Amino acid sequence: MTVGFSSIAKAQTSGSAVKVVVFDAFAVFDPRSVFTAVESHFPGRGSELSATWRTKQFEYCWLRTLDRSYVDFWQVTEDALVFASRAAALELRAETREKLMSAYLQLEPWPDAIPALNAMRGAGLRLGYVSNFTPNMMETNTRRAGAIELFEHRLSTDLVKAFKPDPRAYRMAEQWFGVPRESIVFAAFAGWDAVGAKTYGLKTFWVNRLNAPFEELGAAPDAVGGSLRDLAKYVIA
Amino acid sequence: MTVGFSSIAKAQTSGSAVKVVVFDAFAVFDPRSVFTAVESHFPGRGSELSATWRTKQFEYCWLRTLDRSYVDFWQVTEDALVFASRAAALELRAETREKLMSAYLQLEPWPDAIPALNAMRGAGLRLGYVSNFTPNMMETNTRRAGAIELFEHRLSTDLVKAFKPDPRAYRMAEQWFGVPRESIVFAAFAGWDAVGAKTYGLKTFWVNRLNAPFEELGAAPDAVGGSLRDLAKYVIA
Repeated sequence: MTVGFSSIAKAQTSGSAVKVVVFDAFAVFDPRSVFTAVESHFPGRGSELSATWRTKQFEYCWLRTLDRSYVDFWQVTEDALVFASRAAALELRAETREKLMSAYLQLEPWPDAIPALNAMRGAGLRLGYVSNFTPNMMETNTRRAGAIELFEHRLSTDLVKAFKPDPRAYRMAEQWFGVPRESIVFAAFAGWDAVGAKTYGLKTFWVNRLNAPFEELGAAPDAVGGSLRDLAKYVIA
Repeated sequence: MTVGFSSIAKAQTSGSAVKVVVFDAFAVFDPRSVFTAVESHFPGRGSELSATWRTKQFEYCWLRTLDRSYVDFWQVTEDALVFASRAAALELRAETREKLMSAYLQLEPWPDAIPALNAMRGAGLRLGYVSNFTPNMMETNTRRAGAIELFEHRLSTDLVKAFKPDPRAYRMAEQWFGVPRESIVFAAFAGWDAVGAKTYGLKTFWVNRLNAPFEELGAAPDAVGGSLRDLAKYVIA
């Protein structure tokens, strides 16, 4: 089942006609400001609380898709925060909860993101999101970054009530852009998302910004890099 | 979305005609001997490695059910171990991997399990598993415990190629026992599994042996206890 990194291209070119590049929101926006906010509200306990919050945030997405009890990513994120506080035996006041949740509407793009997005758009590529973020989370953060015009379709899993890696989520890219999956590159932030998109049949680039270990899920992304600069090199022929 | 513990019955009686009790394997078998084996192979690193192994073991189940790349729980468990070793920067030799995996075939029942199972069977209840375990994992451990005759159906998610909490997994209990879901009690070890079974429509008892915090998943088990002794009190009218 092991697929070694050595078999994966590093920031080479994609090799065939890419028309569309779709992004996970965290490939564009840095989530770490949320964790900084957690630490400022719970000094000394931030990394423990953030780690649980983050793990549960995604586990709840998968569980609620599997057991057919979908709620949107905003709700899942808030539920995960409530769980993480309880698991850490920390009192979570309503104001604190609101403050921490609002950090998800004030994300900064990674420093390389906007220049690389502009370069890809300038090269004639069509851009979009395929993200667990709610439409509001995507729009608010993208507007703040002055990048709203760059994204032709902002596809939220909320449209299909199924979180990634359910195939219904990745399928939105084909359906909304109206091009075959082979001409779409998906830019993942998480290793599991890269595998999910690849398993679905999209061409997949793992923007492995935090140098995370490769997931043992039986499939590998087509290429791996450290930034959207690497991605731009990969997709611009 | 919060459902407080106060709204959940603690080891009262189930209140209506229960005919069948189905168990998650970990409600019967104690997984902690696996973690002891990990510590003995990686002194000082056991709890870190075990925590990642365990988290990934279940995440991989959910991801592979969602993205339609199902492999059985034995494979998922081995893949998760490979990931966890790599994440901890520990070399995992083939012999060590085999030794640690074989710990999953040498699980001991929780001390209260066999007497309580006998009491339930003696009271005329029909017993079974609904478990992610492969048929071999269920059979080997149950035979070692001398309890194979107690279980009428040992239902593995491998039969439907979908891990819990996918409804196809819980549905097996109705299909194989041939009784309506309202007369089946599911005994969960994990909080998410209790919620999944309840969301599907089984009567659900959370055997919360490790006093884990309640999951924020929008549904609550019908009752909570600390052992199969508590469960027996709940189901024996």
